[in-house]
Amino acid sequence: MANSPSGESLTDRIVRVLETFTAERSMQSAAEIGRRAGLPPSTAHRIVEELVEAGLLERDEDRRIHLGMRLWELALRGSFALRLRQAALPHMEDVQATIRQHTQLAVLENDEALFIERLSHPDAGANITRIAGRLPLHASSSGLLLLAHAAAPVRERVLAGPLRALAPETVTDAVVLRRLLAEIRRTGVVIAPGSIETVSTGVAVGIRDAGVVAAALSVVLPRETDPAAAVRALQDAAARIEADLRG
Amino acid sequence: MANSPSGESLTDRIVRVLETFTAERSMQSAAEIGRRAGLPPSTAHRIVEELVEAGLLERDEDRRIHLGMRLWELALRGSFALRLRQAALPHMEDVQATIRQHTQLAVLENDEALFIERLSHPDAGANITRIAGRLPLHASSSGLLLLAHAAAPVRERVLAGPLRALAPETVTDAVVLRRLLAEIRRTGVVIAPGSIETVSTGVAVGIRDAGVVAAALSVVLPRETDPAAAVRALQDAAARIEADLRG
Repeated sequence: MANSPSGESLTDRIVRVLETFTAERSMQSAAEIGRRAGLPPSTAHRIVEELVEAGLLERDEDRRIHLGMRLWELALRGSFALRLRQAALPHMEDVQATIRQHTQLAVLENDEALFIERLSHPDAGANITRIAGRLPLHASSSGLLLLAHAAAPVRERVLAGPLRALAPETVTDAVVLRRLLAEIRRTGVVIAPGSIETVSTGVAVGIRDAGVVAAALSVVLPRETDPAAAVRALQDAAARIEADLRG
Repeated sequence: MANSPSGESLTDRIVRVLETFTAERSMQSAAEIGRRAGLPPSTAHRIVEELVEAGLLERDEDRRIHLGMRLWELALRGSFALRLRQAALPHMEDVQATIRQHTQLAVLENDEALFIERLSHPDAGANITRIAGRLPLHASSSGLLLLAHAAAPVRERVLAGPLRALAPETVTDAVVLRRLLAEIRRTGVVIAPGSIETVSTGVAVGIRDAGVVAAALSVVLPRETDPAAAVRALQDAAARIEADLRG
């Protein structure tokens, strides 16, 4: 319906417009949106107008465009992400209070780890993750956990590469990675020192919903910290989150 | 662009499809979506296909449709709601820990209070609000706070009614309401006993961003509780959230 000469649907073009907005670029002019979305000015203008009209985008007094609260509402109201995050948040707070480091919740989305919640601790160091941000599956502890439990086609696609190194210790050899994933399925735990940053260790466990691993719960520890307490806290929290999801 | 015979844009029809999903109805068949969106089956089918293709909707093995993680990601990545919620959450946790009741964050959206965060306390009673849920501006403490600081056209539209009573004490008289709003602007605080439920009192204060009231921070207290401590905790948290938004 309403396909452009290139065969792209209007839905695709709407997605391209929405994709131009990021945490660093939350306000744009209609011209900037069009340029970044790679759309002809008149097309970009019409789509932006329609989206403003529908409340998915909003325009301020300076005619700068930003994402609308209505989009946020529609995206969250019936979402599994919200249900999962609601069930997880109180238990993530317990982990954060005990371990005093960054605590994250991630799901598998389009062959990457998508972070849907993150609690920071004032005592904790820098952390690359951010809510609605993504990391490669093979590099982050959450990603490895999700990849180990992913459907076979997803796993094979990722193993077929390319496997980019985010740090010197990121596992980028498909044979080593395949062995690591089998080990993660056996133990249910990821302990990934230095895979994103040399100074830290990612620790992740899975959260099951309706029998399948639906999310990864993780903390980022300073490299020198023994991960045993974090593993216990994460496993304990995951069990309680799973019980709440069943409730 | 791509308007239907009724003059409705494809964007509007996409919004109508997304609107059929709610917390109680997060999984639907394509036929149910079409019926609830009031769209002809062939139109509904094409829009659902496009949205699945783009990842905004997802289809499970039983061909049930649910909202996609991609929609969630696009809606949040560049949103003010996320920035506000990120700044507010640690301070909301402090309020919740001190007051031990439900703590909420709301914004004005399309003449209603839209709740973008809610922390529940195990000791607290029932609470009508829910994340991505809405309440009338004239009835909830958050809504009254937002209405008092809303642009004049919004305020006049709401005062022009209808002003529905959610409880026997909901203010539904426009003259009384106008006086109440002036008082709220003067004090900066809403204390609304029984406006939603006879057994509880809503207490709300404003959070300013770039000089204007952008959100309401509120707690729901049992009716018999003195609101003074809650007012202090909310004002204190709001000041810290405003400082974090500026940072």
